[in-house]
Amino acid sequence: MPERSAFPAGAVRKVAVLGSGSWGTTFAKVLADAGSTVTLWARRTEVASTINETRLNREYLPGVVLPESLRATDDAAEAMHDADAVVLAVPSQTLRENLAGWQPLLPPGATLVSLAKGVELSTLRRMSEVVGEVADVPMDRVAVVSGPNLAKEIADEQPTATVVACSDHDRAVALQQACSTGYFRPYTNTDLVGVELAGACKNVIALACGMASGLGYGSNTMSTLITRGLAETTRLGWALGAEPMTFAGLAGMGDLVATCASPLSRNRTFGERLGRGETLAQAQEAAHGQVAEGVKSCSSLRELAARHGVEMPITEVVHRVCHEGLAPAPAAAQLLDRKRKPE
Amino acid sequence: MPERSAFPAGAVRKVAVLGSGSWGTTFAKVLADAGSTVTLWARRTEVASTINETRLNREYLPGVVLPESLRATDDAAEAMHDADAVVLAVPSQTLRENLAGWQPLLPPGATLVSLAKGVELSTLRRMSEVVGEVADVPMDRVAVVSGPNLAKEIADEQPTATVVACSDHDRAVALQQACSTGYFRPYTNTDLVGVELAGACKNVIALACGMASGLGYGSNTMSTLITRGLAETTRLGWALGAEPMTFAGLAGMGDLVATCASPLSRNRTFGERLGRGETLAQAQEAAHGQVAEGVKSCSSLRELAARHGVEMPITEVVHRVCHEGLAPAPAAAQLLDRKRKPE
Repeated sequence: MPERSAFPAGAVRKVAVLGSGSWGTTFAKVLADAGSTVTLWARRTEVASTINETRLNREYLPGVVLPESLRATDDAAEAMHDADAVVLAVPSQTLRENLAGWQPLLPPGATLVSLAKGVELSTLRRMSEVVGEVADVPMDRVAVVSGPNLAKEIADEQPTATVVACSDHDRAVALQQACSTGYFRPYTNTDLVGVELAGACKNVIALACGMASGLGYGSNTMSTLITRGLAETTRLGWALGAEPMTFAGLAGMGDLVATCASPLSRNRTFGERLGRGETLAQAQEAAHGQVAEGVKSCSSLRELAARHGVEMPITEVVHRVCHEGLAPAPAAAQLLDRKRKPE
Repeated sequence: MPERSAFPAGAVRKVAVLGSGSWGTTFAKVLADAGSTVTLWARRTEVASTINETRLNREYLPGVVLPESLRATDDAAEAMHDADAVVLAVPSQTLRENLAGWQPLLPPGATLVSLAKGVELSTLRRMSEVVGEVADVPMDRVAVVSGPNLAKEIADEQPTATVVACSDHDRAVALQQACSTGYFRPYTNTDLVGVELAGACKNVIALACGMASGLGYGSNTMSTLITRGLAETTRLGWALGAEPMTFAGLAGMGDLVATCASPLSRNRTFGERLGRGETLAQAQEAAHGQVAEGVKSCSSLRELAARHGVEMPITEVVHRVCHEGLAPAPAAAQLLDRKRKPE
């Protein structure tokens, strides 16, 4: 157990959300709807001013009217001034660099909340570890929010549950209260390791499901990949000290099912293109130049698994398809041909 | 542990499949493709003769050419003659009555395999319990097959995994070998209770997912219902002596995800109609007069849960919508309004 922070975990009333992509903007809306005072930081001045003038984030959340109480700014210092919680909503592979710039501005005692999912490529660290290290704060001040949370559906105020995880239970409860609304229902959890690993692994399994779908396979294959994928995720979690039950919960199974089953999922869509025979470059071009998160995570997770002696056959096969030129069809055959055994 | 049967569990070479619906016919094809000698019993003479003459079961499995080695008959005694295994592929609520008629014809020592999913309404017994009781055989001769197994996809030879469960591990292995093909991959398990409860509960959760979809909700809500639904199924299983790990496997999570996510699922489709505001009678009419299995199971599972002091909020709400006139929209609100708590 990490040492408890010297700052007591009080109520969360003022929040900075750093990053105005679709998830950052949506989570800022949830916090504002729950009654918190929220400032959303956008890198580009015109995004911030458009939000303030029109209540719209046209590029990342088209069609969603943001609450009046939500203010946007391009000034990170202004956003973080006096905040009880700072929400980090930037991509996982750029979190370190971004946070290093913000570190001197972090309000003392504030809860640092990571929305990023993934494992850092160079260091194999989870996002909360990167946050704790770069912000130089004890780990019980770092929280993560993760669950079956497709941003667009939450922005449309569809009933959604999520997990707020922090090793300091009181801090998790304060954050839970700050983001509870009629449509958004957060559960607390103290297993940061499990919640974050689940969030990173699900993108890889979603890629595999996409590939299967691109090859023409239906629900039986998809649900088998989801089930066996969660099993290998749980094995990795077990080796890294996570609570196995976390993987059966909303941040594990819940997020995995939402990501694998939804046509809105970037990783699934990306995998589908690979399954239909497109190259990584073609799929990337179709995704406006962006590579799906799972394409990067599969390599770091595979390395993490090897380091801990954990067998992750689906992650292994996804890595081979993405980075070693294995075609999806023989990859599927390879997965199915493993030795028959007890479950 | 039940007493081991006096008959050693040998290889399964000759199999009778009793029931020529889509799943019975498909499983007969799997067995035949795996090299077993299979006789498929159909209640109606014309179904049996059409299969023998055209290799097609037009009504229940249109477009699928059945293997040459698969024979059909309307004579149950002929089907069962000398069989090493008898597969029971009739609906759960009529299994008792059917099996009572077949009981005198059962070959001594044969493995009895249930494909039916559900809990008997009047007695709250699982299907294997009904089989053991009516056939008057020790429980270690009764097996069940369950998993993410949409019949049409298997008939199309899509890669599919399943669970073969029997308290006698050797018998499970013999059956596993008898139905292993390039596209069908069975895993063994000795937890009959868990496998059967999972199969019964998933139809109720699929109804709930259908209702949510009919109300216009997307993937976040669906995957939350799936996750919390598996949690309440696992709680019931725990109370009834099942292995919790079974619910995380193919017969638990796998089957649940396949059923809830697939447009081919009858229970999901039925729930969708209820969610859109149709009455039970209207939904039944649209389903060619058939009520979805979950509509019956929700009541027996609710009663089983009450008897064992297990909380099953989703099953409770589905029961109220199906049998007590609660509308789906307030039902959804009711589920979401429960007290905020740790996961």
